[in-house]
Amino acid sequence: MNGRPPQGFLFSACAAGIKASGKPDLALALAPEGASAAAMFTRNQVVAAPVIVGRENLRHAQGQLRALIVNAGNANCATGKQGLKAAKNVCAGVAKQLLARQIQAREYQVFPSSTGIIGVPLPVEKIHAALQDLITTAAESEQAFDEFAHAILTTDTHKKIATQSIVCGGVEAILAGVAKGAGMIHPDMATMLVYLFTDLAATPRELQQCLEEAVDQSFNNISIDGDTSTNDTVLLMASGKSGVELKAVRNQFQAAVIKICRSLAAQIVADGEGVKHVVRLRIEQARSRDEARRIAAAIANSPLVKTAWAGADPNWGRFLAAIGNSGVQINQERINIHLGEQQICRHGAAILFDQERAHRYMSEPVYDIRISLGAGSADLEFLSCDLTAEYVHINADYST
Amino acid sequence: MNGRPPQGFLFSACAAGIKASGKPDLALALAPEGASAAAMFTRNQVVAAPVIVGRENLRHAQGQLRALIVNAGNANCATGKQGLKAAKNVCAGVAKQLLARQIQAREYQVFPSSTGIIGVPLPVEKIHAALQDLITTAAESEQAFDEFAHAILTTDTHKKIATQSIVCGGVEAILAGVAKGAGMIHPDMATMLVYLFTDLAATPRELQQCLEEAVDQSFNNISIDGDTSTNDTVLLMASGKSGVELKAVRNQFQAAVIKICRSLAAQIVADGEGVKHVVRLRIEQARSRDEARRIAAAIANSPLVKTAWAGADPNWGRFLAAIGNSGVQINQERINIHLGEQQICRHGAAILFDQERAHRYMSEPVYDIRISLGAGSADLEFLSCDLTAEYVHINADYST
Repeated sequence: MNGRPPQGFLFSACAAGIKASGKPDLALALAPEGASAAAMFTRNQVVAAPVIVGRENLRHAQGQLRALIVNAGNANCATGKQGLKAAKNVCAGVAKQLLARQIQAREYQVFPSSTGIIGVPLPVEKIHAALQDLITTAAESEQAFDEFAHAILTTDTHKKIATQSIVCGGVEAILAGVAKGAGMIHPDMATMLVYLFTDLAATPRELQQCLEEAVDQSFNNISIDGDTSTNDTVLLMASGKSGVELKAVRNQFQAAVIKICRSLAAQIVADGEGVKHVVRLRIEQARSRDEARRIAAAIANSPLVKTAWAGADPNWGRFLAAIGNSGVQINQERINIHLGEQQICRHGAAILFDQERAHRYMSEPVYDIRISLGAGSADLEFLSCDLTAEYVHINADYST
Repeated sequence: MNGRPPQGFLFSACAAGIKASGKPDLALALAPEGASAAAMFTRNQVVAAPVIVGRENLRHAQGQLRALIVNAGNANCATGKQGLKAAKNVCAGVAKQLLARQIQAREYQVFPSSTGIIGVPLPVEKIHAALQDLITTAAESEQAFDEFAHAILTTDTHKKIATQSIVCGGVEAILAGVAKGAGMIHPDMATMLVYLFTDLAATPRELQQCLEEAVDQSFNNISIDGDTSTNDTVLLMASGKSGVELKAVRNQFQAAVIKICRSLAAQIVADGEGVKHVVRLRIEQARSRDEARRIAAAIANSPLVKTAWAGADPNWGRFLAAIGNSGVQINQERINIHLGEQQICRHGAAILFDQERAHRYMSEPVYDIRISLGAGSADLEFLSCDLTAEYVHINADYST
């Protein structure tokens, strides 16, 4: 990262042997004096044990956490009652070991996260064996923060970090975020994990409001392959150590959370499996934001559209058909489609356009498609990507 | 086809030059003395001109048709008012040329269908130039029927035909169906066209009831890539020439229509682009048929599931996550999953199973996955297929 992490947090990471590769797979964030916290979770009805336990702990602790423990390499999902026990067991282990650093913590003040293979028991002993070192080496340095960001990855090709500073009366507060992408590879599940840390002072309720607004404007507007993981988690923790109160910088902080979430969302899409093109879909003149989102998602999740993007093919007919499939009431004759500056569909019908130029434009790694519905005044930007043969290879070429 | 086509129909086909390849692309079915008809159309809100005109004509003609004209190579979709005019123009041309065979027909007694490239004006002149020959050569032979079935194809690798005979008081009536698959290739749209012909005597209303029931039990339970075309059409025509009344053989006929639609649906899935595995998804113990269908579709349209199928990977965690994404309320702990005879998930969690055997089983071209929800008593069989790198190549490797 560039610049210091927010005050009031210590970070560390190690290789606990959960990943077969031997790469770092266990990450810890400590708030020795505690932190207010808010979280959002997957909307998939099948949820992993750490999501259930994390939600429970946050409620039990009334939004006051002492630690966050994340493992990669095992999702602890579809593991039944044993899985719940394992997640609780890890939290208890962290709480117990924290005494070595004179930190008093209850088991429910520890928030667990997991990502990786599904249906395999979490190797709790390996985690326990690694905890003592993990806790004693935790530090507030940039390097420790970077190692944390690195250890939560699975199939991501690089770590994802974003930071913002908020200045109030000459005092600087920091907001820093890390993410693990939604790229998927067998036998891992698609999981998006996002952790945001700030040294502002805030209540869990204030954090929850800011977080919900930011997620609505970022992670809810991206799609790689339309699948939602059983483990998706976004957590925001505030230590209060800067001395700046959130309510004194409410708008500034909200803008910073949105900015960081958007940055991390964009990094996640760009690092999706096999992705060659990131497409910024701009839906304009929808009747509502929700309708704009449903139309964007219908386009972004259509295999025919996504393969056209892979081929840099300005096949607007596929976009139109996907819009027609969205379930949102539309008036085809009012639809206009632009590829960058060039219009490729007018009033829902064909027009002459420079195909060669369109193809060149779609060969860029990042580009814009603007779809105007002529139905209302709601706009939305949605990030998506192409579906390449490499994605299929990554997710299919596996033999039990 | 095996056996004779139903009486009261004449068929023909030719290469009118609509397809750049020069392959047959224009097909005609005549009912010289008229036929009752019923139809179902795409639920996509963006619909092609022939769908609009076909629906209108059927209403105008009060379900009594004289002819069906189908072109492949051009979808006449997103072609605006010109497209509507073109579709009507073709119908008018057919009606006019029918006089050469002493058949009196009004323009609205001709039903038009199109499949192929989107957004390109229909070459009406080429069609007009071919009509005279098409009409004068129309015949009731098996060969003519086969040629009809062949000319409606686009990216299909072979023609799709199914027939059933219905015997009543020693008299045989025939039901014969042809289909064009939902496989897609640039620059074509995904289009499913299905035409059923029978020499039973029936009212349009009786036909409509039978057709809706059959479509609900067949074409509504298949998915190749989750995209719905702008041109999808299923048409059933009855000439009455056998002398057998539908109402005398109601149940037998309904069963025959279902059987033919299921056969054509299976042929369509098996011939999907790049398809290596056809998966028969059996959803059991759902609360309703509709919920079973939504769960089946969520599984069948998940790229992660479809790529696991491509890799013959018994990755039941992906199935479970897709079920959790279906929007249907589920109880994870009641879900059991079988791969053929072998159980691979019990009570929504991992169990030990023979991975090697499961992989071998999933390497077969057609196999069964049975998912029991433990929620109710509704069952459903749904046909789907894998998503292969070849699908991506077919749909992406195109340069304007």
